[in-house]
Amino acid sequence: MSVEERVRASFARQGLMATLAARLVRVASGEVDVEFAFDERLSQQHGYIHAGALTAVLDSACGYAALTLMPEDVAVLTVEFKVNLLAPAAGESFVACGRVVRAGRTLTVCSGDAFAIAGTERRHVVTMTATMMTLGSRDGQAG
Amino acid sequence: MSVEERVRASFARQGLMATLAARLVRVASGEVDVEFAFDERLSQQHGYIHAGALTAVLDSACGYAALTLMPEDVAVLTVEFKVNLLAPAAGESFVACGRVVRAGRTLTVCSGDAFAIAGTERRHVVTMTATMMTLGSRDGQAG
Amino acid sequence: MSVEERVRASFARQGLMATLAARLVRVASGEVDVEFAFDERLSQQHGYIHAGALTAVLDSACGYAALTLMPEDVAVLTVEFKVNLLAPAAGESFVACGRVVRAGRTLTVCSGDAFAIAGTERRHVVTMTATMMTLGSRDGQAG
Amino acid sequence: MSVEERVRASFARQGLMATLAARLVRVASGEVDVEFAFDERLSQQHGYIHAGALTAVLDSACGYAALTLMPEDVAVLTVEFKVNLLAPAAGESFVACGRVVRAGRTLTVCSGDAFAIAGTERRHVVTMTATMMTLGSRDGQAG
Repeated sequence: MSVEERVRASFARQGLMATLAARLVRVASGEVDVEFAFDERLSQQHGYIHAGALTAVLDSACGYAALTLMPEDVAVLTVEFKVNLLAPAAGESFVACGRVVRAGRTLTVCSGDAFAIAGTERRHVVTMTATMMTLGSRDGQAG
Repeated sequence: MSVEERVRASFARQGLMATLAARLVRVASGEVDVEFAFDERLSQQHGYIHAGALTAVLDSACGYAALTLMPEDVAVLTVEFKVNLLAPAAGESFVACGRVVRAGRTLTVCSGDAFAIAGTERRHVVTMTATMMTLGSRDGQAG
Repeated sequence: MSVEERVRASFARQGLMATLAARLVRVASGEVDVEFAFDERLSQQHGYIHAGALTAVLDSACGYAALTLMPEDVAVLTVEFKVNLLAPAAGESFVACGRVVRAGRTLTVCSGDAFAIAGTERRHVVTMTATMMTLGSRDGQAG
Repeated sequence: MSVEERVRASFARQGLMATLAARLVRVASGEVDVEFAFDERLSQQHGYIHAGALTAVLDSACGYAALTLMPEDVAVLTVEFKVNLLAPAAGESFVACGRVVRAGRTLTVCSGDAFAIAGTERRHVVTMTATMMTLGSRDGQAG
């Protein structure tokens, strides 16, 4: 199975991505982009997209970006992440771009950025830093 | 409108909370708890609850905990947050507890903890630190 | 060597703690406190203690709190941390308290809080969440 | 007073930067670089530079990067930051580069990166995301 196939197979098992109607739009070495459309079902109280929806999609984008650089027989696990919300998430669609900053044997640090797209405009709305962990097949759980 | 009514009215406008089937279960001064049940629609690739779903619910719990201590005519906005994932989110239901650590005029720092509940066991699965902003009615946007 | 002796020996090798005149004041299982006095050499531009000095001491307190729960032959390494500054760091002395939230085989999550002490008053000035890593003797470096 | 003069005057009042022997090496619009040399007085227990020293310098670099884009009569205050440590901080000297990601009226989000320099090699050792606050002259304190 190619790296992209592994990523697509794992992404397809994430029930939350289906619930958010999020789609994997790019899988490259150390970089993954995920998109989703505006939907009132994903809103916060002012009608913008909820930070939690953007964060979920960024977490998946970063995790899969890390997975593209990991050995074939391992799993990826999120250790921690931090987001800053830069602007209200208003737009027709949203793209979350995850990329690897440093890949280590056990831990991989990723950076993620989400953009709101409205017509031809693309606005930076969230920035994330995340730590991902390589989980070998003999490891039962995180930590 | 009482503080609890204001929080409940705002929570009810969050489309994402309905999508996650999350319910406000406690609103106290500086403390808000939100619960939701396990659902495959909220899973990550290994069948646990996706970190993004827990983060979304913790963000709402922390934001509304902050709102309980704010003046009546303002809105609350998430500036940033950070989560550490402590254990796999396996369980029948999940509760996210947000509480204010320090309430300032402009910024409020909150702490959030999510627990997985399985039978009589309650396991700490996520811890969050979040910064919330008081947004006056004359303010058009964040930052 | 007891756990406390190991912690004290390692702390004594941290040149920065000597430069900050920071002292280990408590070593317990999963908990370490470090104190230092106000000194203009540690100030920021308004005369308060620089966030970086408080962060350095909290990082050491959290790292050694983690080390108290690790096997004897390993080293501890900081993976990442996040601080929120809650109030200006004005006071005669400062204490940074690190404690373990969850100890794992590879990663340990810690929480740290720093307090400014002025007379009989103790004010919460910084809160930290940190991830520490157990580094076995055969591991050459982080990550 | 020019922006650079304001930044240099404020930096000169930071006792901690003198203690670390850190020097402002570049002040541009939205970007500030600070350097310091290796010194055992700044070490952690394995002889590398302590994460706290790098963090302190990154915090100053980010804060002053934010200040370059603020009105003349205000002060800058760190709200929070998060760092990931990417590699051991071994080198002859270190440069911390802070830059503004988004400047708002009240809050400015910055990104910081620290590099270890050894001979002609430059290694990325720390990455920071920080939130800075514009503090007007009528504001007595943070938050």
